[in-house]
Formats: sequence, C-alpha cells, structure tokens
Amino acid sequence: MQTRPDLFPLFNRLADASGAAILPHFRNLDSIDNKEVGSYDPVTEGDRAGERAIRAVLGEELPQDGILGEEYGAERLDADYVWVLDPVDGTRGFMSGLPTWGTLIGLSHRGRAVAGMMAQPFVGERFFSDGTVSRWAGRSGEGILKTRACARLEDAVMLSTDPVRHFKPEDRPHFDRVSARTKLTRTGTDCYGYCMVAAGQADLVIEAGLQPYDVVALIPIIEAAGGVITTWDGEPAHNGGRIVAAGCKAIHDAALAELAAG
Amino acid sequence: MQTRPDLFPLFNRLADASGAAILPHFRNLDSIDNKEVGSYDPVTEGDRAGERAIRAVLGEELPQDGILGEEYGAERLDADYVWVLDPVDGTRGFMSGLPTWGTLIGLSHRGRAVAGMMAQPFVGERFFSDGTVSRWAGRSGEGILKTRACARLEDAVMLSTDPVRHFKPEDRPHFDRVSARTKLTRTGTDCYGYCMVAAGQADLVIEAGLQPYDVVALIPIIEAAGGVITTWDGEPAHNGGRIVAAGCKAIHDAALAELAAG
Repeated sequence: MQTRPDLFPLFNRLADASGAAILPHFRNLDSIDNKEVGSYDPVTEGDRAGERAIRAVLGEELPQDGILGEEYGAERLDADYVWVLDPVDGTRGFMSGLPTWGTLIGLSHRGRAVAGMMAQPFVGERFFSDGTVSRWAGRSGEGILKTRACARLEDAVMLSTDPVRHFKPEDRPHFDRVSARTKLTRTGTDCYGYCMVAAGQADLVIEAGLQPYDVVALIPIIEAAGGVITTWDGEPAHNGGRIVAAGCKAIHDAALAELAAG
Repeated sequence: MQTRPDLFPLFNRLADASGAAILPHFRNLDSIDNKEVGSYDPVTEGDRAGERAIRAVLGEELPQDGILGEEYGAERLDADYVWVLDPVDGTRGFMSGLPTWGTLIGLSHRGRAVAGMMAQPFVGERFFSDGTVSRWAGRSGEGILKTRACARLEDAVMLSTDPVRHFKPEDRPHFDRVSARTKLTRTGTDCYGYCMVAAGQADLVIEAGLQPYDVVALIPIIEAAGGVITTWDGEPAHNGGRIVAAGCKAIHDAALAELAAG
C-alpha cells in the first residue's frame, strides 16, 4: 500500500484550523446578539466554517487529493487519496451546548480508510490513527490508545447515539436485544463512543443510519487500537449504514450474533 | 434570609479539591495496571475520593455545617446550612470515559437550596450560583448564565439522561408524549442538561428517579439564570424525584400540562 509518512502534523494542522473556525459558533460564544435572529443557525454555520477551514489547508497542501465533505459535497473522488470530512459530528449535542460533538477527518486510499482523527476543540483532546497506531493527545498529555478485551455481552459497556430516534423501527428490536444483555448501555455519544472503545473505556458501539463521513475517520482509530468495526452483517464499515464497533473480536462476534438472532 | 457573602471562592476551593481527587480515576489515568484487577472500581473510587476531599475542606472551614453526601451519608442535618454533595453525577458517563459527568456541590439553608456549583474538571468549566446570579467560568473566560425564552414545545430542545433505562414504566409514556412534541430530544446528559438550560442552550430537562443530591446544587443555577425547576407536579424540586427544569415559565407550564395529560 502506498503510504504517507508522519501524517500526525498535517492532521493537527487541519484540526487546529477547523477548531478555530467552529468554536466561535459553539454555545453562540460570539453571537449573543444573533440569538434573537431566526436565520442564524449555529450548527450549520459551525459545520460550514469548519469544512471551509479544512478545505483551505488541503487545497494548499494536497490539491490533487479528493474531498468528500458533509457540507460542501464531493470533488475528485477518483483521486488515490480522498479526505472524508464531518466538521461537526454530533450536531444535536453541539446545538444543545454539550461537549460531546467532534470534528471527524478521515483519509481514504482507493476506498480503504487509512488514517483518521476525531478532534474536540472545546474539551481539548484528539484521537488519531495513521492505520498502524492510535494515539490520544489532551491537555494533560498524550498516550497510545488500546482497546480492552471483553468476553461476554453481560460484561460489556455499550454506547450509542440515539436508537429511539435515529434507528428504523425494524432495526430497533435487534439493538434492544443486545442492550438488554449488556452490563450498561449509554446513549448520546456520537463520535465519542467510538473513541472510548479505542481508548479501552467501553466495549461496543452499535448504530444505524450512518453516512460514510460519520465513520471513515473512526475506522483506523478503532482498528489500530486493537478493535473491530464492520456493518451489522460483518461487511466493511466505510460506506456507513448499520455499524458495530467493538474492542475485541469476541465481543464483536457476540454482538453480531445477537443482532442476527430473533 | 441569612446569607453568606461571596461564596464563589469557597465553592471554587471545594471544586479544586474534588477535581484533583477525582481526575486520577477518570479513564483510569493513574491505574492502567489495575485494569485487570476486578476489585478496582474507578467510579466508586472517584466518587469517594471527591467526597472526602470536599468534606476535608468543609471540616476545616465550616465544621458547624451539616453534610449530605452520596458516598458517606449524612451528618448534622439539623444545622442551618447543609451541604449536599454528589462528587460524580453521571457515573455511567464517567465509567464510559465520556466528559459528561460533573461534580455537584449544593448548599441548603433550612431546607431551601441557596447556592450550588456544577464543576467539570476534565473539560475545565464550572457553573455556579449564589441564588442571586448564575455564572459560568471556563478555559476561554467567564460570563453570566441566562436562560432563553421558548413559547412552545414544538420549538423546544429537551434533554434527559436515560428515560428508557431510568424511568419507571408508568412514567415513560408521559415523557414520550412531551418528547414527541419537541423540536429535538437529546439523551445522556445528566447534570450538563440543567447547566445547558441555565446557559440558554436548551429549553427543558425532564427526568425521574432523582435523589436530593442529584438536584439541590442545580436549583439555584437554574432559578437565578431565569429558569423554573419543580417536580412534575409543580412542587419544590429539592427532594428530587420526578423533575422538570425549564428556561422560562411558558415552556415549564407547557411541559407540566403535557406530562399531566393522557
């Protein structure tokens, strides 16, 4: 596989640029006067400003690469390398002022997710992988991300964004069956859920209805930390859809089996 | 009412002490070696260490005051002033590594909540009220907390921790009816939900099954920011139970009416 050396500095520059563009829109920090004006949408504005900032850096540094972004669409998708961007993943958290959203920056090589970052500029932490190792950097330092082992659903901590409101009615009972067996299920997690699996803090994420830009950046972070991420049917995750991320093969197998049962 | 001047420095000292005691247990930052040991429970350890730290400061500064804490029980509840403590509110978020938990420090005077703080030491922000004004302090500065107005449930952003898993079966349909009318419902929020109502980022929190230490610290923060917080029946919130917090009277009235309907 063609590789690019030392991607971490470039991802950090992209995250610096997007964070600076998005943060002024979070909690309307710079726009109290606009609160009364119905036309101001802080989520959309933050999303767009973040994606413009990332595209500006990429246009300078790697103009030959393709880009697939949530806000500004696709260009050069036939390029070897394609950047897959969701500047504000977790828009409902963002618009509620909660610190649970994140900026997702993924890099695909000929359709395969090879590197990715989740950056949370308000909390001040980043989760990154170049496909060989997954790393965390925060205000208190930095470290290597490693998933944890979990043999049984009864011992698993499972995270998801909102099965009640985001899942199709026919998918919901499958999720509920897995959830009923877990030690703990926690909702409202968006991209943080996957990063907590990579960090060995949780064992499973099960979601549905994802777009490619919701998941591409997270695939290398999960996999290089020791985890497994596929669709509910065990297929590659990079096209989105119904996704299972797990800290180890045993709990991934158990989740897939329970999702398929009944 | 008997008042105490300038409580903010004391609350900050309590939050400094509890944050320093709790953070080493968050994401097992200091205890990777213990991950394999079944007997180490980071939530319980973090909770206890936080409460011990707060009790140590109070014992030095205000030994005559009462204390009601989640971990170490009650002492001197007949004192004029009673501190009501939940060192880690949002234990499920804490044990999943998510930054959505908070330390709740409340102060009651003869049964009435008169001051409170929610401190999030990992994110680095605090929400505080002395009963007259509500304030925020974070890494980027500080400010006054003000709720926003919202006339109709159809325009409301509603937050809750986990109606599916925390509510009694008979309470759930009432919540679901309100949720179905809101613009947006977001779960997994714990104490952050109330702070986001105080900050004018959300309009409603509806929860059930709360303990006094889950809510006392948040009452002054909501009320002095312009909001309303009661039980589902419109009674004072300080005993916990089924709670509605709202950014204004209109949306509080609308939520109570819908909860009581059907």
